[in-house]
Formats: sequence, C-alpha cells, structure tokens
Amino acid sequence: MIFSTLNINKDEPIYMQIEKHIIDGIKNGELKKDSKLPSTREVSKFLNVSRNSVISAYEKLESEGIIITKKGIGTFISIECKNEFYEYNIDYSSIINTYANTLRDFDIIKTELPYKKGMISFKSISPESDLFNLDDFKRSLLDAWTYEESNLLNYGYAKGYQPLIDYFFEYMKEKRVNVINKDILITNGFTEAFDIVISSLTNPGDIILCEKPTHNTALKIMKSYGLKIIQVEMDKEGMDLTELENVLNKCSPKFGYLIPSYNNPTGIVTKTERRKEIYKLFRKHSVPIIEDGFNEELLYSSSPIDPIASLTGEGNGVIYIGSLSKVLFPGLRIGWIFGDTKLIDILESVKRGKTIHSSFLDQSAFYYYLKSGAFTRYLKNVRKYYRNKYLLVMDMVNKYIPYEYVTGEGGLHIFIKLKDTINSRNLLDLCYKNGVIFMPGDIFYEDDKCLNTFRIGFGRVKDEDIKKGIKIIGDNIKLISESFNKRLE
Amino acid sequence: MIFSTLNINKDEPIYMQIEKHIIDGIKNGELKKDSKLPSTREVSKFLNVSRNSVISAYEKLESEGIIITKKGIGTFISIECKNEFYEYNIDYSSIINTYANTLRDFDIIKTELPYKKGMISFKSISPESDLFNLDDFKRSLLDAWTYEESNLLNYGYAKGYQPLIDYFFEYMKEKRVNVINKDILITNGFTEAFDIVISSLTNPGDIILCEKPTHNTALKIMKSYGLKIIQVEMDKEGMDLTELENVLNKCSPKFGYLIPSYNNPTGIVTKTERRKEIYKLFRKHSVPIIEDGFNEELLYSSSPIDPIASLTGEGNGVIYIGSLSKVLFPGLRIGWIFGDTKLIDILESVKRGKTIHSSFLDQSAFYYYLKSGAFTRYLKNVRKYYRNKYLLVMDMVNKYIPYEYVTGEGGLHIFIKLKDTINSRNLLDLCYKNGVIFMPGDIFYEDDKCLNTFRIGFGRVKDEDIKKGIKIIGDNIKLISESFNKRLE
Repeated sequence: MIFSTLNINKDEPIYMQIEKHIIDGIKNGELKKDSKLPSTREVSKFLNVSRNSVISAYEKLESEGIIITKKGIGTFISIECKNEFYEYNIDYSSIINTYANTLRDFDIIKTELPYKKGMISFKSISPESDLFNLDDFKRSLLDAWTYEESNLLNYGYAKGYQPLIDYFFEYMKEKRVNVINKDILITNGFTEAFDIVISSLTNPGDIILCEKPTHNTALKIMKSYGLKIIQVEMDKEGMDLTELENVLNKCSPKFGYLIPSYNNPTGIVTKTERRKEIYKLFRKHSVPIIEDGFNEELLYSSSPIDPIASLTGEGNGVIYIGSLSKVLFPGLRIGWIFGDTKLIDILESVKRGKTIHSSFLDQSAFYYYLKSGAFTRYLKNVRKYYRNKYLLVMDMVNKYIPYEYVTGEGGLHIFIKLKDTINSRNLLDLCYKNGVIFMPGDIFYEDDKCLNTFRIGFGRVKDEDIKKGIKIIGDNIKLISESFNKRLE
Repeated sequence: MIFSTLNINKDEPIYMQIEKHIIDGIKNGELKKDSKLPSTREVSKFLNVSRNSVISAYEKLESEGIIITKKGIGTFISIECKNEFYEYNIDYSSIINTYANTLRDFDIIKTELPYKKGMISFKSISPESDLFNLDDFKRSLLDAWTYEESNLLNYGYAKGYQPLIDYFFEYMKEKRVNVINKDILITNGFTEAFDIVISSLTNPGDIILCEKPTHNTALKIMKSYGLKIIQVEMDKEGMDLTELENVLNKCSPKFGYLIPSYNNPTGIVTKTERRKEIYKLFRKHSVPIIEDGFNEELLYSSSPIDPIASLTGEGNGVIYIGSLSKVLFPGLRIGWIFGDTKLIDILESVKRGKTIHSSFLDQSAFYYYLKSGAFTRYLKNVRKYYRNKYLLVMDMVNKYIPYEYVTGEGGLHIFIKLKDTINSRNLLDLCYKNGVIFMPGDIFYEDDKCLNTFRIGFGRVKDEDIKKGIKIIGDNIKLISESFNKRLE
C-alpha cells in the first residue's frame, strides 16, 4: 500500500499531503506508469481522513495529467516514471582511461575461453586445495585470534604484521641473502607488490627488460602503466646472455624483471652460474633487477638455488618479491617486497595510499601457520604429490604431443612448443569442444609471439583426467596437421 | 667456523676446493677484511684432509694478495670484501616518480607529530577496540571456516565473496537505493575503492570538485594522480549551493567527491533537501558524483538520511563507496563500490590488476558477522557510548575553547575553528609538550587553508583524558593569545 509510509501532519492541507506523496512515489520509482492507485474510499479509510480530501488530491493530479481515472476500472499513474527529473546517465566507457582499459583488455578471465563444469582444465596453475592441511590452518587461525584478538580488528601498520616481517627476514637469510640495509613490506600477494614497485618507480615509456616468455600478469601491469617491454629469449639454463648484453647495450632499461626460480610459463629454472652472469650484466649497466621468487619452494627436481638477491651483498641492486601463498593458500593474498631500506620506506607510503595495509587477521594466521612448522610439512607432502603428477604429465606428453620442446622441472605447470606451426588458439578451439582447456602461449609474449606454444597446468587435475586430456590435445593436433597436409596435396 | 659449510668432493683437488671456499666466503660477505682464518692445523683436522692441502691453498691465496699471514698471530683476510664485484647500488630516490613522492609527502603518519606512550591523543578517529564484540566475531570466523573451509584459501573472485555482495545489495536497498543496472565490487576498504575509481576514470589535470574541507586520504590520492582539486565551502547544511553552481559553471569537473553522510573532518551531515539540490546541480552539468558513505551508520543525533545514490533511480550518475569497517573493524579492510554495472565490470578488471581479490577469509567472516545480527547489536551499543563521549567533549569545548564554530553531530570526531587567528600547528607544538595531540586542520584543505582549525577525534579517549586534554588545549590557546596581545602592547 503506497500510503502506508504517509504520516499525515496537521500543518498542511491533507489533500496537498496526499498529492505530494503520490508525486514522491512516482519520483522514487515506487509508482510506475500504469500502476493502479487505491480507490479514494480505500485511501480515506486507510489514512482516516475525509474522502473529499482524497478526491481533491486525485482531481488535481488528474488535471495535471499525472494520473487518469478509467471509469469502473480504477485510477492509474499516467506518466512515465518521473525519475527523469532525478536520473542522469554518464557514458563511463568514454571516461575510462588507458590504464583501466588496458587492464580490461588483458584480463584473461574475461578474454579467455571460460572453464565449464565437467571440463578437464589445464588452464590454472593453482595448487590443489585437497592438499591444504586445513586443521593446521584452523589451529593457526585460532592461535592468531588468541594471541592478538582485537589487535587484528583495529588499524594495523602499512608495513605489515611485525612477527611475519621478522619471519620473512629469516626466510631471506636462509636463502643466503644479506639483509643489511634491507627492509620488508607486506603486500596483498605478488600482484600488489609488483603494482607498488612499478607504479612508484617507472614513468610511461620506460623500458623494462624481461624473459621471453614471461608472467602475463606482470606483462599486463607493465602495459597498463605504458611501459615498453623488451623480452629476451631463454634457453634451458635461463636468459640468453648474448641477447641480454645486446639489449642492455642498445636500450637503457629502467629495470629487469626476472623469474629465475621458476619462470612462468616455461617452468625454466635459471641455473646458478647463469644467475651470476645475468646479475653481473645488469650490474655492469647499473640496471636494478626486480626478482620474482615465484614458486621457488616447489622445485622438486633439483636442489634449491639461491635467489639473485643473494648475489648483491650489502648492495641494493635487487628488489625481491616473494609470495609463499602461490604454492600454499593463494586466497590469502600475502606477499612481500624485500629491498633497500629507504626504498621500502617510500613504498610503505605508497602501500598506505593504495590499501592502507594488508589484513592483519590473515597475516597473523599465516604467521602462526608458518611458525608451527606446518608449512614445511605441507611442502614435503605436496612436492612428492606434484612430482608424481609432473612425471605422469611428461609421460603423456611424450606419448601424444609432437613437440619441439617441453620445459618445466618443478612447480605446477609445463610449457610446450609444438613441432608444427599450429596456432595453439585453433588447437584450443577444437579441444574446447571436447571439454579440454589449457592456456595458449601467446599471452606470455609482448610481441613476436610464439603462437604454437601453450601452458599445461596440472596441480588440480586428476590423474585420469591428465591421461584423457593430454590424449585429446594430441588427437586434435593430429587432426589439424592432417587437414593441413590434405590442403597441401 | 667458515669451513662448516664446505663439503669436500672427490672430483677436484682438495686445495682448490679450500681456496674456492675462502674466495666464496669473501664474495658473499662471510669473510670481511682483517677477519682471522683458522690455522692450517685446525682446518686440516676439521675437514679431515691433509694439512699440506690446506697449506697449499693458503700459500696460493697469499701469493695472490688475498690473505696475509702474520707470524705468531695468525692468518687474515687482507682485501676489502670482494662484494664490490657483486654489489651495486642504485639511487632509488632519483627514480621514485611523482606519484610515489606525492604519497610519501602527504603520508601523515610520517609527517605529523607521532603519538608517544602516555599521551592523550585526539588524533585518531578510529573506533574503540574495547567495544568490539569479539566473541561474536570469533563465532563468525568459525562459521566462515565451517561453511567454506578450503574455498577461503584458494583463489577467489575479484568481484568479491558472493554472499557478502548480496548482503551489501540488501544494505543499499534498505537505504532506498535503486539497484537496477547496478553492481558491487568488494575492495580493501575505502582507500582501495577510491584508488580504483580515481586511477581508472581520471587523467592528470582533471578537475575534481569536493567539499571544503575534505578527507585527507582522498586529497592525497587525488593529488598523487595529478588531479586539480577545487573545494567548495560548506555551511552546517552541506555544500554551499551558490558556490557549487559557480564552480560547475566555470570549470568542467570530471567528478564531484562528496561525503554527505558525515564529512571528514567537519562532521557535517548534509541535510536531505541540500542533498537534492547538490545532486540536481551535478545532474544539470552531467558531472558524476563519487559518494563516500563514511560513517553513515554512526549518526546518533538525527534520523538516518538516505544517501545521494538513492536519488538517481535507475540512472548511473552516482558511484557510491561504502565501508562499514570504519565504524566496526578498520583492520579488516573491507569496502565496496556500488555503481553502473558496466562500469563495475571494468573496475573488476582493475581490481584484478591491483590486488587480484580481497581476502576471502575476512570477507566471509565479516559476512557471517553481519548476517548474525551482531553488527546491529554492536551499533546500538556504540552509538550510545560515542554519543556520551560527544556530549562530554562538547561540554569541555564550550568551557575551554574560544571557538568561532564547532561542527560534528555524530561519529567519532568534531572540528573546531578558533576565534583568533592562531595557527593550530603552533598550538599543537605547545600541547605536544604537555602530552596532548590532535589533528591540525590544514591537511584537509587543498589551498586557501584554514589554519586556525583542528580536528578532535574522541572515539578512543577516556573520559578523564577528554576533560584533561581539552583543558590543556584551552590553556595553551590562552597562552598564545596572551603572548600575542603582549607583543601588541
């Protein structure tokens, strides 16, 4: 009942109050065009006012063309919702700037073929949640709560939760990184860490040098800030040194962005000697390195290799970005930036300007989880699990995929370059119809894209699906090759 | 013992391994210049190798000038840490861009006088953590865990946790906001929400129109993106309409940024009629409004007023930013952007490029907390508590502070303009010596700063400290006025 929100007051004529109430109802959308009003009798009874007042109001509105009475049927609103007085519309698409448009254009969740239920998906490189040691985490969450309580709910510090910062310092030390004149800033995962570094230290047009191929999220972020990206080819040991030196000589890059521990998408682990040579070249040209410690914990096929940050001693040439959450709990969104103390001090202000601070509840729970030793137990467990998956994937790939090369020796994915010049997007279209998806390789290249490449993430794929899925990919490669050969005949 | 990390292998001459180990130690900083090496005898015993091998290694290093043996004293490293081969230093201060420098320059945590233990602080506008209903929150946290478990730890969705999004939709509806063609994006609090909107929809040089004074974090973010800020004077009903119309006519602002529900710092609540007039002026000029719903839940001195977003019907002219966490749990960092569906779709991609998504653990716990009714109970409780604090503050201010005006009628702070032209920073310097701090008003002005203003936040100040602290402020005002008058004599 439209009149249930009307409280008649004694200061104004009743008919005016009724009239105003109806107009308000039209304005705020409660009374749409053609909606029926209660009869004057009903209103008078409901509001406990004289029927004449209601009739006066209705007559006035009718004379203004706002309502219409159809004899024997009732009284109706006769105008379009008067919201037009209030509504206005902005064409935001014309306002959206280049930054946002770039992030939209390269938002693979929107641009890539979507996973549908029942599909076999090699698209994701997320860890398998069934392996999460949930009881351990719940205990850590309760520990965090017990020790911190309301501290977790009031404002925290932009730099992060101190015990976790201290933990990450120890973590860096264990990797033989010199922590003198270094500091740590906790972020919402790698993405925010990289966004903070890039948005603070670059200007549009700056050149960033990175591996070819490289992490698509990093590419996306760099592009959104208008940076020029130059990719340097890799072999199985890491970046090609001759090409790297050429590029360093020719252009003056602002930064190098490297994923030596486990390149995404190729899974190539840059070898110790190569790390040194790469590092020395950057040093020679005084170009700082942003080192992405991606998945270094998941290396299961060789012994751990110290990060490039360990080579810089008390120097500040390397900014290291860490993120345990990628192998552990990606949903927790916890990462960190390790680097020059004065630099971190400024990045702390940037962090405060972007998100104030990361969740202290999450940071504290994560800290108690790490401290309890649960992370080490978890790693031991999953390394074996993923290693077996990896071996199975390689078996199947060797059996069904005619590749030029396959890379990846740890972690949760491999990268394949096909022998034939098959566009992996065409291959994906076919596989999609058979319920199989993977990540086409082109998104990892800035230009000069290697179109016959793709990434196979296997962390969350069941063994039988690995067998089935890779066979389907292989079958479709055969199909494309044959139809291609036929056309040549 | 430097040799404890050396594992002798059988493939290389032992003396070479020892030599290399010492050089490595120098390179990685373990062996600094003048540090003493163990004697050849000790090394031979420790490594279980022939003493001759050790002597050979030491002799070779000595011939190269790397170590030196001082007879009867021992053997020492004789060169500067060879890290110079490895170290390099970047002068990041020369690389930091304008964006980061601005965020640093306006980072009040670094620029304002710091709180020291034992002080009476009117600086913060945070809620009192003693009022948090911690048991309710713990229950919600456990509920979230029980219902979601590993879902909370694997990747979530950039848009947010769906039940929480749905909850916020209902919340908007209750405020009579039309949700047709609208969508919601969950963010890490107001700060990220505002950063997402501003970084996506503006370009350097764009004009933003806002209240005078206004939220310093918003000012900081707008400045960091190179925006031009025009502030419009307020009276106790809200923005001045004549000045607003003038500015709208003269410049073409890209956006208006308004805090109608409870302006920070003044605490002015824009009245219903004024909201309409302001809204209509923006509408007339087709300028979209960013509405900051700051602390609208804490209004305790008048009945709730619908947000400006409720005036726009199915139109998309208003982008509303909400953040319950400001009155509740600031540490949780949960806010939301409500606006045009297509716009939110793009902002979702921007969110993904900045922080992927907000913590699902926090979102889910917060959802169960809201759903349980605990928030409503909490509000009822704190409204009364803060109202009493507010009345006490006003009593004291009336007694001790010679003001031109005081504003604020709800929430956790008031704003004072002094009668005399006393610079509140000088006042703060004096008060600081007496152990009292507050927030000088200048940080809330872009230019034409009102220097004799300051903000008094009282949410976390004990009653006796309110009495003591405001008296101290009053005493110091008297002191300044007297010394000023003396100089005039």
